[in-house]
Amino acid sequence: MTGSSSFVRVPFKEMIERFRSILLNVGFDAPKADECAEIFATNSLEGIYTHGVNRFPRFVEYVKGGHIKVDAVPTLKTSAGSLEQWDGNLAPGPLNALIATDRAVEIARQQGMGCVALANTNHWMRGGTYGWRAARKGCIFIGWSNTTANMPTWGAVDPKLGNNPMVIAVPYKDEAIVLDMAMSQYSFGALDYYIKKDQQLPVPGGYTSEGQLTTDPAKIRDSQRILPIGYWKGAGLSLLLDIVVTLLSGGQSVADISKQSAETGLSQLFLAIDATRVADFPAINKAIAAILDDYHASAPDGSSRILYPGERVLATRDENLANGIPVLKSLWESIEKL
Amino acid sequence: MTGSSSFVRVPFKEMIERFRSILLNVGFDAPKADECAEIFATNSLEGIYTHGVNRFPRFVEYVKGGHIKVDAVPTLKTSAGSLEQWDGNLAPGPLNALIATDRAVEIARQQGMGCVALANTNHWMRGGTYGWRAARKGCIFIGWSNTTANMPTWGAVDPKLGNNPMVIAVPYKDEAIVLDMAMSQYSFGALDYYIKKDQQLPVPGGYTSEGQLTTDPAKIRDSQRILPIGYWKGAGLSLLLDIVVTLLSGGQSVADISKQSAETGLSQLFLAIDATRVADFPAINKAIAAILDDYHASAPDGSSRILYPGERVLATRDENLANGIPVLKSLWESIEKL
Repeated sequence: MTGSSSFVRVPFKEMIERFRSILLNVGFDAPKADECAEIFATNSLEGIYTHGVNRFPRFVEYVKGGHIKVDAVPTLKTSAGSLEQWDGNLAPGPLNALIATDRAVEIARQQGMGCVALANTNHWMRGGTYGWRAARKGCIFIGWSNTTANMPTWGAVDPKLGNNPMVIAVPYKDEAIVLDMAMSQYSFGALDYYIKKDQQLPVPGGYTSEGQLTTDPAKIRDSQRILPIGYWKGAGLSLLLDIVVTLLSGGQSVADISKQSAETGLSQLFLAIDATRVADFPAINKAIAAILDDYHASAPDGSSRILYPGERVLATRDENLANGIPVLKSLWESIEKL
Repeated sequence: MTGSSSFVRVPFKEMIERFRSILLNVGFDAPKADECAEIFATNSLEGIYTHGVNRFPRFVEYVKGGHIKVDAVPTLKTSAGSLEQWDGNLAPGPLNALIATDRAVEIARQQGMGCVALANTNHWMRGGTYGWRAARKGCIFIGWSNTTANMPTWGAVDPKLGNNPMVIAVPYKDEAIVLDMAMSQYSFGALDYYIKKDQQLPVPGGYTSEGQLTTDPAKIRDSQRILPIGYWKGAGLSLLLDIVVTLLSGGQSVADISKQSAETGLSQLFLAIDATRVADFPAINKAIAAILDDYHASAPDGSSRILYPGERVLATRDENLANGIPVLKSLWESIEKL
């Protein structure tokens, strides 16, 4: 994105300050504004613009619309050993998710594993945030969120499944390996990105209205038939993730959420496993390094670099810390007016 | 498969008896022979022939070759609250997996969740077996196994990833909803099936040796470049599943397993969550029924029936119980000579 006159480079600290002051203006108290601003800015810093700066205006809109309750905090509903059920009380999604992650880690430290199932929450923005957080505390993390229906199941034309993002993270050295993936091959945001660039998708991403598998992003946007990863497999995984999180949280399913006009009242799962209870850090790092060495020794096909999930984040973070975070100029101007 | 003269229909009980007597002959004691024969026959009864009757000769070959130790039993290595690390001692994979599943369920009943990470085990055959078992005991089940390397990662031509099957199961009425999926779009067994029928794959399943995405099963078999589900996404998921199970079990990774001549010494994870600690069965069944009703109300594209994972199993079980299990005649004759 560098070199384009339509982009500005916003320093990390300036972005935090801007977000913070807007959040204070819409009713956040100072500690919540700090934490939330840092999450949005860090997601942007680490290259996840879609769930950072690009999404910030919509977050503010949801606050103003009353879908996100700035004064609410999550409350414990049921405790069953290492498993807890919480109510998010429609508080800001990222703040709820941080609390749920930290609580799952705390239980894991005591009991080996900890799980927080959270009902009635809001969009957590970037799921990877919580994977990185748990992993930096020495825990393996597995978590996911349901969403509104936005993807047809296998053999169907209408969206009944969520793209239900799932995160798996493991601690590694001072950082982490973090997989953060939605169940759709491409998001609608990604389709828009390729449409704007007038490019085909690298791999088939959905169906045309006539039912042909296609790499044409505009045809998929028109049909709304985005593809689950692995066709019937990702469709099945999406369904099971929704069922599990709905049961454990006692919250809303994808079907329930989809009856609302706004995407709110989501159900999320946060599972932490304290890896240090069965291995010390030198052993963890040695085992992972051996796996990654073998992985990186793959023979490349020449089309793309061979990276592990989250590997790109470290370089992007350094680059954006040094040069500022690239933001579409018109977007940054609109944020300054929020 | 009905109606073909190359198939015989073997009654369920006859198949169990045949497997049992062969297992007794190769050194299993009676209780282990009973349990193992029932697993192989049930997998066949429920339509998972690839990990039932079709795989039985190879299982016997592994026993005879000393890769599977018929006298071994798994032993506890480390206990850390709800998390336990076990050594499979190279005992028969399905028997180890049953013990691990039952132990995870037992811990879950006491502590809300239970996890058994099992090193040094053998192929569990059909992962769904353990999902059904845990779900019938009222637990949500999440589990996976690593395998030998058989799939290139994204951007690579040589296999460094396992297809690492993953299972997610939830209790539902007297049965279960069970997702059992490998990380590859198609197995090599599936490619052979389409090659024999001289058919193209329904969706792209890999690359030609020239690097073109293809639905031609023979070209994929030649290149050995099978596709991860969702391209880079399934590749990342496969890698993370391997890392997590290797760390928690203290066992071999895909890279370690691949250095051996035989696929043995696998690492597996069995995680049970006692759903009844946060909801009673009527509530569980009601919540799931509402999700499935919405799911089944999808508008079909006409290409295939809209089924949830595991839905087909019930009908196949009834059909095969009534008419016998279809087995390739030549295969059944070779099994009779084992």
